Amino acid sequence: MPALRAAQALRPAIRSSLRVSSSSSSSFLNRSLAVRMASSKAFVQGEPDAPVLKASIPGPQSSKRIAELSEVFDTRSINMMTDYTKSVGNYIADPDGNYLLDVYAQIASIPVGYNNPALAKAASTPDMVNAIINRPALGNFPSHDWAEILKTGILKVAPKGLNNVFTAMAGSDANETAFKAAFIYRRQQERGGPDVEFTQEELDSAMNNQAPGASSLSILSFKTAFHGRLFGTLSTTRSKPIHKVDIPAFDWPQASFPKLKYPLEDHAEENAKIEQASLDEVEKLIKTWHIPPAAVIVEPIQSEGGDNHATPNFFRGLRALTRKHNVLLIVDEVQTGVGATGKFWAHDHWNLQDPPDMVTFSKKAQTAGFYYGNPELRPNKPYRQFNTWMGDPARALLFRAIIGEIERLDLVNHTARVGDYLFTKLEGLQRKYPEQFQDLRGKGQGTFIAFDNPKRDQFLAKAKEFGINIGGSGASAVRLRPMLTFQEHHVDILVDALEKIVKAL
Amino acid sequence: MPALRAAQALRPAIRSSLRVSSSSSSSFLNRSLAVRMASSKAFVQGEPDAPVLKASIPGPQSSKRIAELSEVFDTRSINMMTDYTKSVGNYIADPDGNYLLDVYAQIASIPVGYNNPALAKAASTPDMVNAIINRPALGNFPSHDWAEILKTGILKVAPKGLNNVFTAMAGSDANETAFKAAFIYRRQQERGGPDVEFTQEELDSAMNNQAPGASSLSILSFKTAFHGRLFGTLSTTRSKPIHKVDIPAFDWPQASFPKLKYPLEDHAEENAKIEQASLDEVEKLIKTWHIPPAAVIVEPIQSEGGDNHATPNFFRGLRALTRKHNVLLIVDEVQTGVGATGKFWAHDHWNLQDPPDMVTFSKKAQTAGFYYGNPELRPNKPYRQFNTWMGDPARALLFRAIIGEIERLDLVNHTARVGDYLFTKLEGLQRKYPEQFQDLRGKGQGTFIAFDNPKRDQFLAKAKEFGINIGGSGASAVRLRPMLTFQEHHVDILVDALEKIVKAL
Repeated sequence: MPALRAAQALRPAIRSSLRVSSSSSSSFLNRSLAVRMASSKAFVQGEPDAPVLKASIPGPQSSKRIAELSEVFDTRSINMMTDYTKSVGNYIADPDGNYLLDVYAQIASIPVGYNNPALAKAASTPDMVNAIINRPALGNFPSHDWAEILKTGILKVAPKGLNNVFTAMAGSDANETAFKAAFIYRRQQERGGPDVEFTQEELDSAMNNQAPGASSLSILSFKTAFHGRLFGTLSTTRSKPIHKVDIPAFDWPQASFPKLKYPLEDHAEENAKIEQASLDEVEKLIKTWHIPPAAVIVEPIQSEGGDNHATPNFFRGLRALTRKHNVLLIVDEVQTGVGATGKFWAHDHWNLQDPPDMVTFSKKAQTAGFYYGNPELRPNKPYRQFNTWMGDPARALLFRAIIGEIERLDLVNHTARVGDYLFTKLEGLQRKYPEQFQDLRGKGQGTFIAFDNPKRDQFLAKAKEFGINIGGSGASAVRLRPMLTFQEHHVDILVDALEKIVKAL
Repeated sequence: MPALRAAQALRPAIRSSLRVSSSSSSSFLNRSLAVRMASSKAFVQGEPDAPVLKASIPGPQSSKRIAELSEVFDTRSINMMTDYTKSVGNYIADPDGNYLLDVYAQIASIPVGYNNPALAKAASTPDMVNAIINRPALGNFPSHDWAEILKTGILKVAPKGLNNVFTAMAGSDANETAFKAAFIYRRQQERGGPDVEFTQEELDSAMNNQAPGASSLSILSFKTAFHGRLFGTLSTTRSKPIHKVDIPAFDWPQASFPKLKYPLEDHAEENAKIEQASLDEVEKLIKTWHIPPAAVIVEPIQSEGGDNHATPNFFRGLRALTRKHNVLLIVDEVQTGVGATGKFWAHDHWNLQDPPDMVTFSKKAQTAGFYYGNPELRPNKPYRQFNTWMGDPARALLFRAIIGEIERLDLVNHTARVGDYLFTKLEGLQRKYPEQFQDLRGKGQGTFIAFDNPKRDQFLAKAKEFGINIGGSGASAVRLRPMLTFQEHHVDILVDALEKIVKAL
């Protein structure tokens, strides 16, 4: 199995001491981090005790591979050429023999470590081979065990109150199918119920992309939100202009997301007012926007747009408000879902009595879709919500194995504990370097932690020289997105490196 | 391996003679088709010699499974509950022991037969396991062998003149990313080239979904076209109102697709005029539509909207016209690509000197994306065309194995030959039953053949009683979409069944 082979391949590397190279020089520094680390037992066998740096990044092998790839594939967004046969657990490897502690995890997508043996086992079963080679059109020809795969996997972890799923391919189309469900549901209500037939005018005008058939309804999203890059979702994404410029968009409304002040305990009253102002703006837009919203979509934590948090109180208010105005609430858990916040779903932190109407997922689930509970969110006729593949059973099988691994190792509670340990250590760094660790946020949110740094982009680049693969969000945030297998000894390595990075900047 | 197990499981079934049940009665009829068929050697071992019907469809096991699935998943579009562990080659199996000859193939998506042993082998390799369990964010962290996987797979079969690829998840997002490329390219030209920076007004207005940042450009598509169901692609889809009603749409232009008269050889002059009228309409829309098109998207054969064909002359005219007006031409080969028309790409039939600007693919490729040649279709900055996964290397590996199987068995030429054999036989049926096989089309287009039937929906349902799984397109077409492993002896079974179906209606 690859994981074992990777582990074997790794042994020579991890016997060498940690060597850190500067990307601007070829000199190496010997360090002794490895000795101080690795106090707790690693979940994943074969991880190095600490980052291993053998060459600058990109090194000669990586540069050669990047040049080859550039001939046929746009590589200008490359962060790091990766060797997935050697990557293991929390460590990402490159073709030059470097092993970085990975707290970015494929943009928050790797759930339980590279080359996880339990996943390798699931990926080697006859069921998986069958799912790979006989890809069904799920809406027409589901497999005899599709109900069982859903019930023992995707639906086993369904958010409270939601017991149905529409499967999709990635976060962006998961959100778009949720939007479609919202439009169809709302128009069905306006029409007088599921049994009322479409008028000929509706059918004819829909074919011409005109009202009344093409509905004049909208999705309300928040400023600095990210919900995807397809044409519907991009109209709700408001994180960065580079994602949006030149692409046609729907004239849909956006409300301000609360910009909380930190530390939260010192600004409770002020923050409550900020959140109320945001809710008031949402209500006003619902009541007055010229293209009325059928749904509001919100991330529990704005994960691309700068790691912007709001309190459970805000979200409970949003649920009440949307309910009051008969607007659906879609919670986009594409990045926050599957354990990273110390709850399986980030919105579990809100203690809602009245669940969201739809919850979308992708990334760490390694498959995608939206959950819902209300049976009326199934459109009144078949084929209104449909596409050829409607997801991928191979990826659904993998998610089931991921859930098994999360349960076996109790990784959600584990992540809550490790997150607290990490947050406390970061508070220590913040006290020492207040300018470098501004607005530290994500307390009690597992490892879903971020802070602002005035030289953020340099910070991210410099991190590689200290053996850390780390990402940013928004204009100035450093976002931590470790895997659920991130442990206390990894925290120690990370925090040690973060201090070195800010000293070096 | 599943394919072998499926074959073993099948032996008792294929020893029994063909039994056909009516879904409205429990009686079985013995037939002797099996004896007359199976003259040529099957590509896939373990196929039955003929359809096997043991129960009505859905039978008791299928009904039970459908009821279970309905609790959590919308099943109203179910065509047939399927057992993929038993399906083999050109035969789709259900949980009740039925084996139907499948000329629908998961909506034209299964390329080389169920449980193809070569694909099973590829799906069991360490490389595949690695690709499944370590899913990369391809734009940021491509694997060291991604260039090789592309060059020996997806790009090995790239259409002439196109040597770059942007990978995607399914046909719909493949088309939407192609649209984005077109908008970005066109605006870049209007702006004065890739080096001209965005204005602050563009950046600011894009964040508000307003012009000039959100561009006021369109994609021109054809009436009765199908390009997908996401918000951008659905605005170009014009096949059926049920796909579009209640969903907001962009006010984009549509031109009439030629409605050719059959048989083609009797209407050459008239059809040429029809095609010229369509081209004239395209030109008029390009010049006058209030939201000018950045691209025209067209299917080589309108595959969902009724199997509507046009001649190579029409498409050459469309290429010349789009070139003349600096509008990009996107050829949507999602359904027509990968061999079914007797060429690897359906647009190979056109003998273009000037290739399309982009060609999109999915379905039989089992992965998706768009090909392009012009380096300026790479946006001027990174992250403009980007998403977390940007496709799935596991599916790219599978496509490579599919290409290997197509080459090994020379399946494109094979399909051209079998298509001719099938078409000739269907012409015989048409002479005998002219009302039941109207407008027979797809001559010289491999097995991508269709005809109209006045009772189409009953025809499709009735086909199952004669052991055939077959689909429709548009309002009245029966569309044939067999796999590339469809052989002469399957043609004999199919044609025999088609005659029985029309006699029974």
